[in-house]
Amino acid sequence: MSHAAYARLTQRLARLGALGEAAAILHWDASTMMPKGGGAARGEQLATLAGLAHDMMIAPDMAADLQAASTQSAWEDANLALMRRAHLRATALPTALVEAVARANSACEKIWRDAKAHSDFAQVRPYLEEVLRLQRETAQALSAATGLTPYDALMDGYQRGVTAAEVEPVFNAYEAFLRDALPRAEEIQARRGPPLPLRGPFPAERQRALCRDLSLRLGLEAEHSRLDESVHPFCGGTTTDVRITTFYSEKDPAKALLGVLHETGHALYERGLPAEYARQPVGESAGMAAHESQSLIIEMQACRSDGFLAFLGPMLERSFGGDAAAYAPGNLSRLWRRVARGFIRVDADELTYPAHVILRFRLERAMIAGELAVAELPGAWAEGLRDLLGITPPDDARGCLQDIHWHDGGFGYFPSYTLGAMAAAQMMKAARAATPGLDAALAQGNLTPLVAWLRTHVHGHGARLGFQDLLRAATGKPLDPSDFQAHLRARYLDEDGQDRSAAASR
Amino acid sequence: MSHAAYARLTQRLARLGALGEAAAILHWDASTMMPKGGGAARGEQLATLAGLAHDMMIAPDMAADLQAASTQSAWEDANLALMRRAHLRATALPTALVEAVARANSACEKIWRDAKAHSDFAQVRPYLEEVLRLQRETAQALSAATGLTPYDALMDGYQRGVTAAEVEPVFNAYEAFLRDALPRAEEIQARRGPPLPLRGPFPAERQRALCRDLSLRLGLEAEHSRLDESVHPFCGGTTTDVRITTFYSEKDPAKALLGVLHETGHALYERGLPAEYARQPVGESAGMAAHESQSLIIEMQACRSDGFLAFLGPMLERSFGGDAAAYAPGNLSRLWRRVARGFIRVDADELTYPAHVILRFRLERAMIAGELAVAELPGAWAEGLRDLLGITPPDDARGCLQDIHWHDGGFGYFPSYTLGAMAAAQMMKAARAATPGLDAALAQGNLTPLVAWLRTHVHGHGARLGFQDLLRAATGKPLDPSDFQAHLRARYLDEDGQDRSAAASR
Repeated sequence: MSHAAYARLTQRLARLGALGEAAAILHWDASTMMPKGGGAARGEQLATLAGLAHDMMIAPDMAADLQAASTQSAWEDANLALMRRAHLRATALPTALVEAVARANSACEKIWRDAKAHSDFAQVRPYLEEVLRLQRETAQALSAATGLTPYDALMDGYQRGVTAAEVEPVFNAYEAFLRDALPRAEEIQARRGPPLPLRGPFPAERQRALCRDLSLRLGLEAEHSRLDESVHPFCGGTTTDVRITTFYSEKDPAKALLGVLHETGHALYERGLPAEYARQPVGESAGMAAHESQSLIIEMQACRSDGFLAFLGPMLERSFGGDAAAYAPGNLSRLWRRVARGFIRVDADELTYPAHVILRFRLERAMIAGELAVAELPGAWAEGLRDLLGITPPDDARGCLQDIHWHDGGFGYFPSYTLGAMAAAQMMKAARAATPGLDAALAQGNLTPLVAWLRTHVHGHGARLGFQDLLRAATGKPLDPSDFQAHLRARYLDEDGQDRSAAASR
Repeated sequence: MSHAAYARLTQRLARLGALGEAAAILHWDASTMMPKGGGAARGEQLATLAGLAHDMMIAPDMAADLQAASTQSAWEDANLALMRRAHLRATALPTALVEAVARANSACEKIWRDAKAHSDFAQVRPYLEEVLRLQRETAQALSAATGLTPYDALMDGYQRGVTAAEVEPVFNAYEAFLRDALPRAEEIQARRGPPLPLRGPFPAERQRALCRDLSLRLGLEAEHSRLDESVHPFCGGTTTDVRITTFYSEKDPAKALLGVLHETGHALYERGLPAEYARQPVGESAGMAAHESQSLIIEMQACRSDGFLAFLGPMLERSFGGDAAAYAPGNLSRLWRRVARGFIRVDADELTYPAHVILRFRLERAMIAGELAVAELPGAWAEGLRDLLGITPPDDARGCLQDIHWHDGGFGYFPSYTLGAMAAAQMMKAARAATPGLDAALAQGNLTPLVAWLRTHVHGHGARLGFQDLLRAATGKPLDPSDFQAHLRARYLDEDGQDRSAAASR
């Protein structure tokens, strides 16, 4: 056993990390800056970086060092384990399969854009069949290498260590909760009457200034971040150069505003990762569910709280002017915490969002298991949505064609959204319990106490702990969906429309 | 001999080309978009890409394929020769030397920024001594591998195939020309009296729109280009995604305007390179002197011509308003073709600019030869400038500290500027001779005939021809400095202040 071998590995991983950072900036550029004519070359650039990274990961001397390496701390242990995991997953897949997957995903994604625009599932069907065939092959190969089930092996690529066997009962319990909670929430909401609309105009330039201001107020540093525009908002870049994007609608400022708060949550996580392990596997985030917990604790838990809305209302009024009553916190909460059965996942409210995820989890699991054919997908989708939310999509564009996932090869990712929402509620409860002034600070627009708690109990762990261990360390228990249900009950099932989340969780 | 080996080489070079493109976008980003806090990580990213590219270039199987490869066309011949040249230059330098050079250049450049701000040569001197020591070592190693003299081996890295023995008599002749021409040009100019100043305001937003409009009018495609801002203007990006930058002064629109025309010349060259050899050495530009000829033929030859200024004046008046007489072409030509002995190269006019280059050529050649020590540089600079232009820099900030070159390891680059200016005049004469309507089109703001000629006779050759062969192919003769002198005589030494370049060159 040799610590020199470990040191060599960290050097190799640092180069791999730098390649990953370069690719992240090129991806950001492609979505925000690149003229259209640069697209083909950008594809070549990214494919070359991915190919070089794969070559470095599967190189024989890497395998030898992974065998020989010894570590000197718990962090190094975790780092080495993550290196071994990455190497195992990379070597499990033949290069020909990796290339076939990249080609099939890229071809299907292109067709999907058109198929969605015309709501024409038949158009994309053969492409999606090929994508699924290759995902099943990938899942089998990863399963053989890791000992996980095929679907778990895919899920593990997004959120290490979470299995379908853990997720299934959690999702089933949520379904049962929702059957009771959704009609009650709708009834309470109907009794309260509709909110006043925010009346524009909402000039993009003023939205941009407000969004940047809020993002910095939440703790993102100007020296380490940017805010730009893209069709699909995201948080990208690198840990010292985080780049969030949004899209400004001049009719409705809520999308950009709440979207930027969401992406700022992701960005704060990146900024809080342990700098001493930069470009090492253990210095990365704990996974996609953990990442989503950080965007949702900021957007949903903190910034849609009564306290923060009371701070935000006057700020909006100053920026855009108009009807003061519309900016009152009670009205903002009715506008931005409105429950509605809808067809579109990304537009869904906090209460019904998990239904969209549960539907996709069940369908993709069945597809990977070979129990659901692509041809049966539109029907199974419509039936599943009817069963969960009592509505039927009028067409496939608002059904199984709405998301890019699957059509770009993304199987196993969807559960992360709802695991993240649940973890966010659980962490918020723990943060409140440990931080007496937290809600008072939120009402002043001050997230410092919350972010400080997250820095210590979540961000600073990097990828040292898996999802469940991270929750244990931060909250004293593994994933406990009852905290999320308590949050939803307090926010949506209380007769007077006040958010009792803060009180309920103390 | 094997064409399969050649095919393998083109694949390897395509990956190297893609890495180079990725680095170009990251460099652009660092100058235009990156928040300051991303700087250290960006250094790691670029160093990693450079290291991987170097590893790929010096790999043993690359050498074997270079030996075995056979070609099937003149283009392939040239491509293979350029591959061999790149490989020879890469393998000539020990990795330890390459790394030491990168470290020393980076350290010196940082200190130089501060030293220039305080005009404190002593501060940078030890760093520059280390940079020079390593450049001399590099030059020796390249000389041993290529058979060129050490200084020529450095120059060859910027402009392949041009030697100091060719440059020296050209520069000496220009010096002699200037001794006579400069006082005469000044006298004529003095007799004419000063031009009317352009009076602002010149809002950056309107300058930006005008610059972009002009750039597109010159033939740059919106789908393949961007215009952004940076402290030091440049043309970067890739051939299908060219990115030019400028800097807007609200007091004087000339800098951005003429700067963007200059960078557009570079960009048009990149856009005109042979697409079928994209990411191959033969698909690149013919070198730095060739590149400068393309920026200068657009900025100096075409856009500062009487005809184009007559088109530009009304356009400026529409954009900014103000005193119509100031926008008259006669006044614009006196403003923008003003001769002045100055200390700063980048602010110099067309006539005196070569003096700045001649000075630097002589000094850097002596330094590489070991005949001039860094400690003697400030004195030698002051003396040289006095000799060439009759003025003495008041301090080192306006003397040997003004340029980043040398302090970032750039020895051998300076001659390219003046070789490019001379080539531009020679090409313009040939383009005019071959294109009857060229000047009439310029007066309509139409560069299509000129750019079409450049596409065929310059851009489309890629790097297939070296600098002199490119000139031979385009103009029927190798570099002939008398065309540049004729251009300057017609523009600056004609009593009536009209530009006789067009007439003189027919």
